Amino acid sequence: MALYVLSRRSSHPSTSQFFVALRFVRSYSSSSFREERDTFGPIQVPSDKLWGAQTQRSLQNFDIGGPRERMPEPIVRAFGILKKCAAKVNMEYGLDPTIGKAVMQAAQEVAEGKLNDHFPLVVWQTGSGTQSNMNANEVIANRAAEILGHRRGEKFVHPNDHVNRSQSSNDTFPTVMHIAAAMEVNSRLIPSLKTLHSTLNAKSIEFKDIVKIGRTHTQDATPLTLGQEFSGYTTQVKYGIDRVIGTLPRMYQLAQGGTAVGTGLNTKKGFDAKIAAAVAEETRLPFVTAENKFEALAAHDAFVETSGALNTIAASLMKIANDIRLLGSGPRCGLGELILPENEPGSSIMPGKVNPTQCEALTMVCAQVMGNHVAITVGGSNGHFELNVFKPVIASSLLHSLRLLGDSSASFEKNCVRGIQANRERISKLLHESLMLVTSLNPKIGYDKAAAVAKTAHKEGCTLKEAALKLGVLSSEEFDNLVVPEKMIGPSD
Amino acid sequence: MALYVLSRRSSHPSTSQFFVALRFVRSYSSSSFREERDTFGPIQVPSDKLWGAQTQRSLQNFDIGGPRERMPEPIVRAFGILKKCAAKVNMEYGLDPTIGKAVMQAAQEVAEGKLNDHFPLVVWQTGSGTQSNMNANEVIANRAAEILGHRRGEKFVHPNDHVNRSQSSNDTFPTVMHIAAAMEVNSRLIPSLKTLHSTLNAKSIEFKDIVKIGRTHTQDATPLTLGQEFSGYTTQVKYGIDRVIGTLPRMYQLAQGGTAVGTGLNTKKGFDAKIAAAVAEETRLPFVTAENKFEALAAHDAFVETSGALNTIAASLMKIANDIRLLGSGPRCGLGELILPENEPGSSIMPGKVNPTQCEALTMVCAQVMGNHVAITVGGSNGHFELNVFKPVIASSLLHSLRLLGDSSASFEKNCVRGIQANRERISKLLHESLMLVTSLNPKIGYDKAAAVAKTAHKEGCTLKEAALKLGVLSSEEFDNLVVPEKMIGPSD
Amino acid sequence: MALYVLSRRSSHPSTSQFFVALRFVRSYSSSSFREERDTFGPIQVPSDKLWGAQTQRSLQNFDIGGPRERMPEPIVRAFGILKKCAAKVNMEYGLDPTIGKAVMQAAQEVAEGKLNDHFPLVVWQTGSGTQSNMNANEVIANRAAEILGHRRGEKFVHPNDHVNRSQSSNDTFPTVMHIAAAMEVNSRLIPSLKTLHSTLNAKSIEFKDIVKIGRTHTQDATPLTLGQEFSGYTTQVKYGIDRVIGTLPRMYQLAQGGTAVGTGLNTKKGFDAKIAAAVAEETRLPFVTAENKFEALAAHDAFVETSGALNTIAASLMKIANDIRLLGSGPRCGLGELILPENEPGSSIMPGKVNPTQCEALTMVCAQVMGNHVAITVGGSNGHFELNVFKPVIASSLLHSLRLLGDSSASFEKNCVRGIQANRERISKLLHESLMLVTSLNPKIGYDKAAAVAKTAHKEGCTLKEAALKLGVLSSEEFDNLVVPEKMIGPSD
Amino acid sequence: MALYVLSRRSSHPSTSQFFVALRFVRSYSSSSFREERDTFGPIQVPSDKLWGAQTQRSLQNFDIGGPRERMPEPIVRAFGILKKCAAKVNMEYGLDPTIGKAVMQAAQEVAEGKLNDHFPLVVWQTGSGTQSNMNANEVIANRAAEILGHRRGEKFVHPNDHVNRSQSSNDTFPTVMHIAAAMEVNSRLIPSLKTLHSTLNAKSIEFKDIVKIGRTHTQDATPLTLGQEFSGYTTQVKYGIDRVIGTLPRMYQLAQGGTAVGTGLNTKKGFDAKIAAAVAEETRLPFVTAENKFEALAAHDAFVETSGALNTIAASLMKIANDIRLLGSGPRCGLGELILPENEPGSSIMPGKVNPTQCEALTMVCAQVMGNHVAITVGGSNGHFELNVFKPVIASSLLHSLRLLGDSSASFEKNCVRGIQANRERISKLLHESLMLVTSLNPKIGYDKAAAVAKTAHKEGCTLKEAALKLGVLSSEEFDNLVVPEKMIGPSD
Repeated sequence: MALYVLSRRSSHPSTSQFFVALRFVRSYSSSSFREERDTFGPIQVPSDKLWGAQTQRSLQNFDIGGPRERMPEPIVRAFGILKKCAAKVNMEYGLDPTIGKAVMQAAQEVAEGKLNDHFPLVVWQTGSGTQSNMNANEVIANRAAEILGHRRGEKFVHPNDHVNRSQSSNDTFPTVMHIAAAMEVNSRLIPSLKTLHSTLNAKSIEFKDIVKIGRTHTQDATPLTLGQEFSGYTTQVKYGIDRVIGTLPRMYQLAQGGTAVGTGLNTKKGFDAKIAAAVAEETRLPFVTAENKFEALAAHDAFVETSGALNTIAASLMKIANDIRLLGSGPRCGLGELILPENEPGSSIMPGKVNPTQCEALTMVCAQVMGNHVAITVGGSNGHFELNVFKPVIASSLLHSLRLLGDSSASFEKNCVRGIQANRERISKLLHESLMLVTSLNPKIGYDKAAAVAKTAHKEGCTLKEAALKLGVLSSEEFDNLVVPEKMIGPSD
Repeated sequence: MALYVLSRRSSHPSTSQFFVALRFVRSYSSSSFREERDTFGPIQVPSDKLWGAQTQRSLQNFDIGGPRERMPEPIVRAFGILKKCAAKVNMEYGLDPTIGKAVMQAAQEVAEGKLNDHFPLVVWQTGSGTQSNMNANEVIANRAAEILGHRRGEKFVHPNDHVNRSQSSNDTFPTVMHIAAAMEVNSRLIPSLKTLHSTLNAKSIEFKDIVKIGRTHTQDATPLTLGQEFSGYTTQVKYGIDRVIGTLPRMYQLAQGGTAVGTGLNTKKGFDAKIAAAVAEETRLPFVTAENKFEALAAHDAFVETSGALNTIAASLMKIANDIRLLGSGPRCGLGELILPENEPGSSIMPGKVNPTQCEALTMVCAQVMGNHVAITVGGSNGHFELNVFKPVIASSLLHSLRLLGDSSASFEKNCVRGIQANRERISKLLHESLMLVTSLNPKIGYDKAAAVAKTAHKEGCTLKEAALKLGVLSSEEFDNLVVPEKMIGPSD
Repeated sequence: MALYVLSRRSSHPSTSQFFVALRFVRSYSSSSFREERDTFGPIQVPSDKLWGAQTQRSLQNFDIGGPRERMPEPIVRAFGILKKCAAKVNMEYGLDPTIGKAVMQAAQEVAEGKLNDHFPLVVWQTGSGTQSNMNANEVIANRAAEILGHRRGEKFVHPNDHVNRSQSSNDTFPTVMHIAAAMEVNSRLIPSLKTLHSTLNAKSIEFKDIVKIGRTHTQDATPLTLGQEFSGYTTQVKYGIDRVIGTLPRMYQLAQGGTAVGTGLNTKKGFDAKIAAAVAEETRLPFVTAENKFEALAAHDAFVETSGALNTIAASLMKIANDIRLLGSGPRCGLGELILPENEPGSSIMPGKVNPTQCEALTMVCAQVMGNHVAITVGGSNGHFELNVFKPVIASSLLHSLRLLGDSSASFEKNCVRGIQANRERISKLLHESLMLVTSLNPKIGYDKAAAVAKTAHKEGCTLKEAALKLGVLSSEEFDNLVVPEKMIGPSD
Repeated sequence: MALYVLSRRSSHPSTSQFFVALRFVRSYSSSSFREERDTFGPIQVPSDKLWGAQTQRSLQNFDIGGPRERMPEPIVRAFGILKKCAAKVNMEYGLDPTIGKAVMQAAQEVAEGKLNDHFPLVVWQTGSGTQSNMNANEVIANRAAEILGHRRGEKFVHPNDHVNRSQSSNDTFPTVMHIAAAMEVNSRLIPSLKTLHSTLNAKSIEFKDIVKIGRTHTQDATPLTLGQEFSGYTTQVKYGIDRVIGTLPRMYQLAQGGTAVGTGLNTKKGFDAKIAAAVAEETRLPFVTAENKFEALAAHDAFVETSGALNTIAASLMKIANDIRLLGSGPRCGLGELILPENEPGSSIMPGKVNPTQCEALTMVCAQVMGNHVAITVGGSNGHFELNVFKPVIASSLLHSLRLLGDSSASFEKNCVRGIQANRERISKLLHESLMLVTSLNPKIGYDKAAAVAKTAHKEGCTLKEAALKLGVLSSEEFDNLVVPEKMIGPSD
C-alpha cells in the first residue's frame, strides 16, 4: 500500500522516493503499517506511531539533518499545554465535552513528554511550523480516540475539527514558541544564573581581604582585592538576570486567537484572552493575549530581543571564564593566582596541571550562543507580509541557546566556581614584587625619585625596597610604612 | 626639530617614519610647529592645533583608516561635558578656582563641538581610549591656558594634574561612552522612532477600512485591512522604542570614580556620586554612579545589551521596509497595492517606475547595524582582568548604529511613509479575484461543493462567482450575499 | 562501588553528584556496572558499554544539553579511521602486531558507525576534545581486547599505550576534525550542490525561450528570458562549488604528528607523513601532513575559511530560494510566474495554494549556517598559545552546516526545483502589460512621444498599444513590428 | 530659485525641506548657485561644485550619517577608471572623439582623486548605487564640458548620453565595486600582509634557538622554541594571503556590459569584453568580463566570499595579537616572555609598563571586520530578482575591512612586531621551573618515581631537581644529563 503515494508522483523520478520509503521502514523498525489520509490522499504510517498523514508526508519530504534535528522537546511539550488549554476553552464554546476531555487528557500526556517518540519531524520543514502543529493535532487526536475506545486513523477525534479547533498553525506555532521559551527562561536559565550569581557572590565575600595585583591592558596595574575582582563578575551575572527578565513582558504575549493572518477569523470574540488565561493558569506564568496579533504572526522580534539578552549574557560569561582560566594558569609558568578544582586527569605526568575544562565548555557555549543569535536575527528580519516563515529555526536556536546557557552555567558553578581557591602565597608574592606600588612613595620622596626607584628595580630586576635602599632615598622602616597595598584599594576619606 | 622623535628610534628602520612625518606636514597644512612634551620627550605639534604631545604621538603611531575613522563626535562632545563636570567637582575638592573655571569654559567649547578640529585621533588606537582622553586633556588644558592669557604648550594649565585630576582614562573613557550613547539614544534615535511610529499609526488609521488580500508564505490567504497590516508595523516600532528604553538603566551608570582599576584610588569618597550628579544636571539625563566600578571598567555589557536592542529594531525595520517595497512593487507586474512617493527619477523612460529608494537605504542601514552588533559583541566578550580594551570599537560601532538608525528612520518617515498612498483599485481587484473567499461558501453549500467551485475557478482562470454560477450551486444574489470580505477581518461575536 | 568516586570528592557538596549518578543508572538502563580506572581512581561504568573511566567522568562532569548535543557522528567515524591508521603505522614502529591488528579491527567498527552507542560525550566538554579522544581510545581498547578474548576494563589492550600511541589529544582531535569535514564536503555537500546545479542548468535550458519581465528594485524593468534568470542561479551554485573546493587544500592538511604542542615530541621522524598517507589511502582523499604543526594545533583557520565558503553558499541559496518563492507567489494575487510542485496540503480549502515549503526549509538552513559561521569565527579567533580550545564547537558547527546545506540542497532539488514549471500564460500577460516595452519606440517616434505613450498608458490603465493608437503616433501594424520583447534580451550585433 | 524644487512638493509638509535646503547653503558654504535639471525638473546646485541635479536631489533625500558616511574614495576613483575606459571603448563604437577625449581626461582626474570634493553622496542611498553613478556622470560631464570650453550645467557633454553611454547603474556600480575591491586587495592588503609575514618569519628565525615552556589550555605543557611558536603565526599570515588571493578570480569578473538586467540591452556585442580589457590595461590587474551577467548584477557572492577570507584573516590576527600581548604581559606579574616596543607613555609612574597598544588597535580592527562580514552577508543574501540592492553597504563594508586590515597590519608590523625582543632570562627561568620536564625521567626511573618527583616538587614548591635529590632517585649529574629541554622540541630519530 505504500506504493500508493509513490505512484501518484510517478511523473517525477521516483527511485529515490522509493529508497526514502524503504529507509523509513528500516529506521522506524516497524513491521506493520496502517493507512492514514489527508486531502492529498492516503499514505502508509507505522502502526506503532500515533502520527497521521501530514506528519508522515513531512517526514518523507524533509529528509534534512537526521534525528538530532527534531523539533526541540520544549516545543512538543508546549503543544501539549496549548492543545489542552484550547480544548478546555473550546468546550466553553461548544466542543463536545466527551471529546474535549479526551483531548485534554491526551494533550496532558504530550505536555508531560510521554509521547515524545511520536514527534519525529525536524526543524527544517515548513517555515510556519504547520507540520509540527499537525503532528501535535494528529498524535493527540489518535491518542484521544484510543482513550475513548476507538482506533488510530479512524478520526473519531479529528485532528483539525477537534484538536485544532479555532486555531491555525499561524497562531499556534508562535504561541508554543513563546510558551516554550518563557518556560525555559524561568525553569532552566534563571535558576542556573541565580545559583552562579550566589556562588560568585560568596566567593567575592570569601576573598574580600585578599589584596592582589590589578591588571589592565594585561599589564601590571594598581592593586585591588580578589573579592573586588569577583564582585565585577557577580555584578555581570546579576545584570544578566535583569536583562533576560526585562525581555519577558513581550515573551508573555501569546499570538493565539490571531488564526491565519492575525484577524482572528474563525474564532469568537474573547477566545484569545481566555486561552491566554488558561495557559497562564496551566504554566503559572503571566501569559496574556498579544496586544497586536498581526505583529505576533508576522514578526518574532520578541525572540530577537530575548536572544539579544542571551548574547549579552554570553559576552559576560566569556569574559568571566576567560579571566578565571588565565588567573588559574600555571601551575608554575602562568599567573597562578587561583586554584581550580581538579575534575579529571589533566595529564598522567604533570601533577598540578589542571585544565580549566569547565571554562572551556562554557566559553564554547558562549560562542554558539553568539552564533545562534545571528541565525535568529537573520530569521527574524526576513518575514514577509502576514507571516514570518523562519519560525522553527528561530525557536530552535533560541531554545538551544537557553538550554546550553542554563546547563553550562550550572555545570560551571558546580564543577568550577564553587571549588575555586585563592593561591594566597602566589598572590602575595606577585603583589609585592610589583613595581607599581612605587606610587605610594610619591608624596614622601616626590615623583622623580620614585620614578628612579622604579626604573632601578626594573632595570636590575630587584625589589622596589632593594632599589630604594640602594638609592638611599629612604630607610627600610620608612619604606615599609609607606608601601602598603592594603591602603590602595579604595578612595581616600 | 621634527627629527627629534625620529632620531630616538633610529635603531628601527626610519624611512617610513620620515614619510609619515612628512605626510603630517602636508595633511595638516601647517607651516609651523611648536614643541610639546610628555614623559617620552619633546615632539613637534602643528602650531595651529591645541593638542599636545601624546595626541601627536598617537597620530603617528596609529596611521589606520584615515580621517573618516576619527573618534565619533558624540564622544568628543561627551569629553567636554565630563571634563567640565570634573573641574566643577574638583573645585569642591580643592582645585584652584581660577584654573577650574577656565577648564570649565574650555570644556564647554568642546561640548559644543567648537573644537572638533583639534580631535584628530582615530578609533583604532589604545583599546582603553587613553589617547583620546589625553587628547581631551591636552586640548582643554591648552585652551584654558589661552583663556587665562598663557601660551599653548606651557602647561600653565596641566592636562594631567588639572584637567584629568582624580581621573584615569580607565574611568573617563567608559564614562564618555555612556554619556555619548545615552544622549544619542535620547536625542536622535528615540525622537526619530517616535515620529516613525506616529506616522505609521496615522497610516494604520487612514487605511483602516481598506480590505485587502492577506499573504502568508508569500501566498494568497484570508483578507485583512491595510490598516491592520500597518498596525503590525506600528506595534513593532512601538516595542522597539520600549526595548531601547529598557536598556537605559544600565547605560545611565557611570564608571567615573573607579580610576585605574575600579577601586577609586586617588579619588575621595563621594567623588563618584558627585560627578554623576553633575553630569546628570548638565545633560538632564538621570545618570548615576555605577553600582560596581569593577564591572564598569572590565566589561561593556551595557553596550552589548543596547546594541542588542538596536539589532532587534533593525530586524523590525528590515521587515517593514521589505513589505513596503514588495507591496509597492510594479507598477504593472508586481503587487502594486501601495503607491510610494517619487523622490527622484526612477528611469527616464518608464513613468510610474518608482524605485523604493528609501526602503533600500533603510534596509542597508539595518544590515550594517546587525554587523556592528557582532563587532560590539566580539569586543565586549574579549575583556581581560580589570579592563576591557575594545572600548573605542565598541563605542564607535554603537554610535554608528545609533546615528544610522536615527537618521534613516527619519528619512524613511519623511521621504517615504508619510507619502504612501493606497492603490485602492488594485487592492480591490486582487481581493475579489482571490480564490480564498470561497471559504465563505462552506456553511451554505458545504465543503465539497465549495472546493469544486474554487478548483473550477483556478483551473479555468475565471472568478469564483463565474465558477459558482457555471456549476449551478447558487445564484448570483446568493453569491454576493455570502462572499463579503469585509466580514472576514475579525473574530465573530 | 560507585560511591568511591563520589566519596573522594566528599569535601564538595555531593548530593547533586549522587543524583547525577542515579540518573545515569536510569538513562542508560544498565542493570549492572563494572569498575574502570584512570589516574583519578576507579569509577563505575555500565557493563554493556565499551567506554572507560575518562569517558564516564566526562559524562558526569559535563551534563550539558542532553543526548542531541553528542559529538557528531562524522567525528566518531573519523576517530575510527585515524585510530586504524595509527595502529597500522605504529606496527611499522614496533607495536605488537597481535594488538595492532585487533586495534585496527575495532577501529574499523568505529569507522563504520557500528559502535556509535558507545560515544555518549557531548560537544560541550574539554575544548581540546581530549575526552572524546579518550572515549575513542577506551572503546577501541576494550573492543580490541574482546576480539583477543580478554575482558573489558582489564586493559589487555591499553587505551593510552596502544590505541593512543605516539598521539596526543592535541593532534588527534584536529586531525579527526579535518578528516570529518573533508569527507562531509566530498560525500555530502558537493554531490548535493552538483545535482542542484545540474537541475538548475536543465531548467535554464528548458526556459531559454520564455521571455519575461525583468525586475530591479522589485520594480518592473526591461525583459529577459526565464532561462537567463535561472542561469544566474546556476552560476551562483557553480561558483559555490568552486568556493568550497578552493578551501580544501588547507583542510587536507593533518595535524597528526604534532603531539602535545606541535613539536612532535614522543613521535619518530616520518610518523606524521606516514599517517597522513595512511589516512589518504583509507579515505581516498588527498590528505597530507600539515606544513606547520604549531598552526595546526593552535588555530583552526581552515575551519573558519571553509565556513566562510558555506556562508557564501548560504547567501546564494537564500537569494535563489527567495526569488523562487516570490516568482511562485499567488496563485491570484502574487507574481505567479512559476508553478511550484505541490508536496503536501497547503490548505484544505484553497486549491492552487502551494506553500513554498522547500524554499522555507532551505532559507531557514541558510540562516542557521550564517549563525554557525559566527560561532566558528568566535571560536577560531579565541585560541591561546599552543592550543585552540574551542575545537569541539568549531567542529560541530561546521559539520552541522555541512550536513544541513547538503541535505537541504538535495531536498530542495528533489522536491522543488526539479518540478518547477513556468506559468507561460501569466508570464506573457505580465510581459505585454508592462510599460517599459515603450523603450522600443524611441528610435521610431522619438523619446518625447514615447514617453507620452507610456504616461498615457500608466494614467489611464490601458496598454501601450492602446495608448499609442489613441495618441495617433503610429499604426497597429507599426506598433506590433516595433514592440518585440524577444529583441530586447541581448546586446545588438 | 531654490524654492522651485520645494514648491513642486508643496503637497508634502515642506518646512523641514526648507531647512534642509538652508542647511546645504551653510554646510557647503556656497554663496551662489546655478540651476541644473533632470527629468524631475530644475534644482539649485552650488556654483562651485561640478555635480548636477540628480546628485543634488540625493543629497537632500538621504540626510543620513553625515560626511563620514560618504561613498568610499576607492569607489569614486574606480568610477574615474571605468568612465575613462568606457569613453575609450565607446569611441570605437562611434562616440564623437572630441567629446570622448574630454570625458577621458575628466575621468582621469576623478581616478586620481582630484575631484573627491565633488562626490558628496553617502553610502545610504539607492541600493543600486544609481545616484553615485549619476554623481560620476554629472561631475565628469561638467568637467569635460569645461575642458572643451563650455559651462557647467549646459550639458554640452551629457551625463547620460555621453558619459554613461552603453551603461546602466546596474552594471557600472558592481563594476566599480569589483575594481575598487581588487585594487585595495592588491595595493593595500596584500603588501601589508606580506610585510607582516616577512617580519614574523624573521622573528621566527631570530628566535629559533630559544627553548621555552609550551602552554596548552593556558596551562604549562611541554617545551618548544620561541621560533616554533612564531612559525605558527607566520604560517597563519601566509595562508591568509593565499586565502584572499584565492577569492580574486571571481573578483576580477566585471559586470560591465550587462546594463539594466544583465541582458546587455543597448550595448553592442563585444562591448563587455572590450571594456574589461580596457580596465585590465588601465589597472594592470587581470580583469575579465563576467561569465554570467545575471549573477553579476543580482548577487554579490564575490564580496561575501572575499569578506569571508578577511574574516578568516581577522580570526588569525586576533589570535596572534592576543598571544603577543599575553606573552608580553608584566613586567613583573604576567608571563613576561616578550618585550614589546614602547611607543608612547604607558604610565607616568610605572617604568617598564608597556601597554600593548598596537595589539589593541589590531584586535579592535578584527572585531570590526567580523562585524562588517555579517553586514555583507546579510546584504548579499537579500537580493531580489535581477538586482541586489544592498550594493553600497556591501561595497563600503568590504572596503572598510580592507582598509582597516591593511593599515592595522602595517602599523602592527612597524610599531610592534619588528621591535619585539625575547626576554631570554625570564623564558629560561620559567622553563626550568616547570614541572613537566619530569617527562624526561620516565625512561630512567620509571613513571611512578617520576610522578613522585613531580608531586613532591609541586607540593613543596621546590624544583624538580631538588625533589629528585630529596627523594634520592638519582644524582645531580644524572638529573642534569636527563633533563634537557632542548631535546624535547621535535620527534626523535
